[in-house]
Amino acid sequence: MAAALEETPVTYEDLVDIEQAFDDAETDIIRYQASRLSDLYALRHKTVSQIPNFWPLVLEQAPPDIDQYIQPSDSAVLLSALTNLDVTHFDIPNPDGDPRSVSIKFEFSTNEYFEDKVLEKKFWYRRGRNGWSGLVSEPVKIQWKKDRDLTGGLLDMVCDAWAVSRTGPKTVELSPEQLILKKKIDSTGMGGLSFFAWFGFIGRHVSADESKKAVESERERRKGRALMKDVRTIDATDELEEEEDDVGMSLEIFPDGGDLAVSITEDLWPSAISYFTQAQEQDALSDDDFESDDDENADSDRAGGDSEEDASQANSSRPVKKLRTS
Amino acid sequence: MAAALEETPVTYEDLVDIEQAFDDAETDIIRYQASRLSDLYALRHKTVSQIPNFWPLVLEQAPPDIDQYIQPSDSAVLLSALTNLDVTHFDIPNPDGDPRSVSIKFEFSTNEYFEDKVLEKKFWYRRGRNGWSGLVSEPVKIQWKKDRDLTGGLLDMVCDAWAVSRTGPKTVELSPEQLILKKKIDSTGMGGLSFFAWFGFIGRHVSADESKKAVESERERRKGRALMKDVRTIDATDELEEEEDDVGMSLEIFPDGGDLAVSITEDLWPSAISYFTQAQEQDALSDDDFESDDDENADSDRAGGDSEEDASQANSSRPVKKLRTS
Repeated sequence: MAAALEETPVTYEDLVDIEQAFDDAETDIIRYQASRLSDLYALRHKTVSQIPNFWPLVLEQAPPDIDQYIQPSDSAVLLSALTNLDVTHFDIPNPDGDPRSVSIKFEFSTNEYFEDKVLEKKFWYRRGRNGWSGLVSEPVKIQWKKDRDLTGGLLDMVCDAWAVSRTGPKTVELSPEQLILKKKIDSTGMGGLSFFAWFGFIGRHVSADESKKAVESERERRKGRALMKDVRTIDATDELEEEEDDVGMSLEIFPDGGDLAVSITEDLWPSAISYFTQAQEQDALSDDDFESDDDENADSDRAGGDSEEDASQANSSRPVKKLRTS
Repeated sequence: MAAALEETPVTYEDLVDIEQAFDDAETDIIRYQASRLSDLYALRHKTVSQIPNFWPLVLEQAPPDIDQYIQPSDSAVLLSALTNLDVTHFDIPNPDGDPRSVSIKFEFSTNEYFEDKVLEKKFWYRRGRNGWSGLVSEPVKIQWKKDRDLTGGLLDMVCDAWAVSRTGPKTVELSPEQLILKKKIDSTGMGGLSFFAWFGFIGRHVSADESKKAVESERERRKGRALMKDVRTIDATDELEEEEDDVGMSLEIFPDGGDLAVSITEDLWPSAISYFTQAQEQDALSDDDFESDDDENADSDRAGGDSEEDASQANSSRPVKKLRTS
């Protein structure tokens, strides 16, 4: 079907302006949402922190777009040592920040894999010069115990390459650290990658400064000050930028890292009680099975009876998965 | 892993209360969102109504969870005759209503399939006695032109069966109209079902009255007035109800109707300009292909030149798919 914009009084810029206004509205809505929910999240935290295994049980029920990244060896540490999860829109108080920026914080008890008690991964919502926008991050180092690195050294290599690229000269040549990383990526094939490799996600290389300029230039464009000429200029200077970005993305060990952050933020986090309830129900069901197979007449009003009651209550008032609000 | 609620001071009811508080917050957020966006949707409508084929082009780019329901014969009428789409949360002004209730309205120009100029499908967000909540609807009749019924008579049968079930005595026996519908469903296998069969979606049979009572009884439960005894009573009276619902669902011709409504409301509708832009880009790309194959040195600064410019502009400032805000 023919696209019909040329034959109308509407310009492409008109549509971009409307989309930008929707984008502004969305940031307001996220701000409102965060303020409306903050007390509730605090109450939830107070309540669920009294339930041992709350977060491990939630993770066990994680939807496929999260669960697919959790390997059996990751489960071993997540199910035994995860004590808390916290998601915050840390950039909301910052006038230059975007409310879609998010921090995802995992707390762990002492475990045999790593020394860290807290692993925090921050994602910044940024706009690139070429119009792209989305979540970017920085690699987070994990203090693995001896021979326990679930990423097989990959995460350390990302951290090393990142440290060098931030201090070294800007170039499209690979640094020695990047070459080591690239060789590792090429040789492993990246199948069965650990969930913990996600802490190495970087995404597009858009700095806070570039993002700020892109947002400002978009604002100016909307005021009608920047026209075709400027658009062309940006296109030209973008070429080196994009080449750098291609190199960056070829060294990305977790290309879906931003999507995974969104799934945790918008699904696992708000629906955690719902997932926990699912876990309880499954547990009750398997208790019932056990009971009816082997235990029908013995001791059935203790563990078995309790579980059955839980299950029927669960059925009568179980929280349903909420509609998304966007 | 053992579910651990029994060993804690936290009860199942505590968790249900928190979920209910989140649910209340969510309705507030949807109200805020609707009021924040209403002027913008009006502006968008004013702008895109000047673009012929705006909505057909949006539909052409619909994501798979919508596109999978559009058959080639549906496309014929949707692409040639759809002139407007409108989504409204009609129940927001109603204090008893749920802001998640939604009306999806299609407007059509004269076409050879049906007489209707407007097809409006309303969905009510309701809570059942058994704790279920979600979108339900009522069948919408379409005035098909002779031999043009894209549902092969199915939609009419649903409307007939529905009309009788609302006036006739409450029973789990099938009425003659329901038997005709059941026979049709059993004999056709329901493959390649028309998109327009969606107008026949009913979903769970939860009346406004039942929903109101369920919401009230949930409120009472939260106040601590209703305890285990009432939960048991509800379970008992639910049995006939559930049997009726099973019959209802066995006659449902579009079981995913509620999900489709959510996809239209939360994806196609807010991201319409984004989908339209995608259609423009694809068009520009195929123009470019055409040009380089057959037209390289002739007249290239007319149609081809324009398209190329559109494409580069599109690249530099194309609206990206927004993060969901829930």
